[in-house]
Order: sequence, then structure tokens, then C-alpha cells
Amino acid sequence: MASTDKPDHRESIKSEEALAAPPRRSNYSSVHVALRVLLFAASVTAVVVMVTAKQTEIVPVPVFPFSAPLEAKFSDSPAFIYFISALSVAGLYGILTTLASISIVLKPACATRFLLHLALLDVLMLGIVASATGAAGGVGYIGLKGNSHVGWGKVCNVYDKFCQHVGSSIAVALFASVLLVLLTMLSVFSIYRKIPK
Amino acid sequence: MASTDKPDHRESIKSEEALAAPPRRSNYSSVHVALRVLLFAASVTAVVVMVTAKQTEIVPVPVFPFSAPLEAKFSDSPAFIYFISALSVAGLYGILTTLASISIVLKPACATRFLLHLALLDVLMLGIVASATGAAGGVGYIGLKGNSHVGWGKVCNVYDKFCQHVGSSIAVALFASVLLVLLTMLSVFSIYRKIPK
Repeated sequence: MASTDKPDHRESIKSEEALAAPPRRSNYSSVHVALRVLLFAASVTAVVVMVTAKQTEIVPVPVFPFSAPLEAKFSDSPAFIYFISALSVAGLYGILTTLASISIVLKPACATRFLLHLALLDVLMLGIVASATGAAGGVGYIGLKGNSHVGWGKVCNVYDKFCQHVGSSIAVALFASVLLVLLTMLSVFSIYRKIPK
Repeated sequence: MASTDKPDHRESIKSEEALAAPPRRSNYSSVHVALRVLLFAASVTAVVVMVTAKQTEIVPVPVFPFSAPLEAKFSDSPAFIYFISALSVAGLYGILTTLASISIVLKPACATRFLLHLALLDVLMLGIVASATGAAGGVGYIGLKGNSHVGWGKVCNVYDKFCQHVGSSIAVALFASVLLVLLTMLSVFSIYRKIPK
């Protein structure tokens, strides 16, 4: 009898644990909300750091025999303008989906359909943010190292603070891209978990 | 009585249609396979077009007072090397997942878990391909238009065929990125459809 009692006892403990544990959906949702707040913060940081990347230096003018103050700013490069646009959209998307996720945590009806829509939108945003990060990174790398094959000189030996801002902004945008990958994966996994095994 | 009969009749027609119609899972899988074949083809095309982008032109050397033949090729730019690497990985991924999808069409056991893994991997590949397309696009745009603010001259007025290859390759890579977005969305939607309503 003792041998048959033990499994029963274990099962009762397990079922008690299952009753005592909070439902897993709420955990997933809180991780969702936290990641979306991080996405918003990262996007806004990237935009602010890029917009404030202004530096004026006295540089020799190529044709005339004198030097003049020249300002470096993000709007000098179309890639950086695209970067600002994409990350601004990502920031707006981050705050809107944070609010939407909080409303779903409070009222969990239609949560699965909501997760589907979020996953589809996250994929789109990932494509936009990743391409913007790539474009800004490609142009920033030329600014840092130059390209001797086509005679593009490096810029960062003169505009050092400007390049620090651009580099930091791109790093934060890369973090935002990773967050979007994680968010999409989390949404997909949350949908998958709702399938009865 | 007539009013109660009609719904029954409609329901019986619906159930007959449901029995007669083929299961939708196979349709989704065939679309999956077709999109993955397209992804493979697009990635290989982008890589081949970029690798064959070589052009030699006689260009004036800046320091010495004579002209010399100079070759433009993809390996001159780190962004293009990253582009080639990322699209090669995407091509390999395309052919491997095509074969895996075909095997799942033939033996549909574990199809849902397989869809989950594909969706997670698709998201990663999308991030890589989109950033590579962005980086190559950013550098290609400087080659096309130049940047007067930092004195980077345009290249495409001399190396016209090289730029045509690069532009075509980036356009095909953009198509591959869109395919990856569609594939991820399709996987997510296929998983969502398996949840009982």
C-alpha cells in the first residue's frame, strides 16, 4: 500500500502547486510589456542621440586657400535621415503597443488574436529598423575608416564627437532590432503555447 | 417548421462542403515551399549579380599626372562583403528549409512544432538580410549620388555597369527581405490557425 500511496501524494502536491502558481499568460504579458517599454526607450534614445550629433570644426576649404567653420549634422546623409525616420516610427510603435499590451494584461479577452496582430506588425517593424540600422552602419563605417579605393576620405578624425554620437545611436538601434526579434519570437511562442497538445 | 428547417439544410450543405474540400494545411505548406524556393532563387541571384559586378576603367590618378586602369569590384567595400555573406547564408537557409518543408508536406507529423522553429529562424534571417540590404543600399546610394558635405565623389558616372549590377543585386535582396517577411507572417498565421476557436 505504501508504494501506491507515494505517487498519489506526489500528484496531490503537484496539483496544489499548479493551483497555487499564477497563470503563465500573465507572466508572458508582463515580459511583453517590459520589452516594449525597452523598445520605446531604445528607439527614443537612438533618435535623440542622432539628432544631437552636431559638431562644428574649422576645416580647410579644398579650392580656396583658407579654412572655414563647417558643421557636421545628421541631415548631411540620406541614410541618417532614413535612420531617424525609421527609429521614430519604432518609438511610436513601441509606446502604442505598450499601452495596448497593458490593456490586454488588464482584460485578457481576445489576447490570442491580439498576439497574432502584434507578431505580424513586429515582423514589419523589424524589417524597417534592421534595414535602417544597416544603412546608417554602412555609411558610418565609411565615415570612420574611409574608402581608399574610391577616394572617400574618413571624417571621424576631424568630427570625433559627431562620430561618437552616430556610433552610440547605431549601437542602441541594434539593441532595438534585437528587442524586436525577441518580441516577435515571444509572440510566436505565446501563440504556439495556446495550441492544445 | 419551414423557418427551422432552413438553417439545418444550410448546415448540412456546409458540412458536406467541409468534407469535400481538401485540408487547408497542405495548401499552406505548398505556398511555404514555393516562397522558400523563391527565397533561394532571389538570394542566389543577388549574390551572383553582386559577385559579377566587376568593371575596369581608365581613371586619372590623383597624385601623378597620368591615367591608369582601375577595377571596381564588390570587395572594395566592407558593406558589399557583408551583403554577399548575408545573402549566401539566406540562400543556404532557403534551400535547406525548402527540403525540410517538402519533407513535412510528405509526412505532416510534428508540422506545428516545425512551423514554430521555422518562424523563429525566419525572424533571425529577416534581421540579417534586411540589415545587409540596408548597408549595401546606403553605400550604393553614396556611390550613385556622392555626398558633397564630406567630399565623397560619386562613382556611378564612371563605373556605370558596376553600379547597374550593384543596384539590381540590392533590388533582388529587397525582394528576398519581403519574401522573408511574408514567410514569417505565413508561419505565424499557420500556427494561429491550429488553435481551436
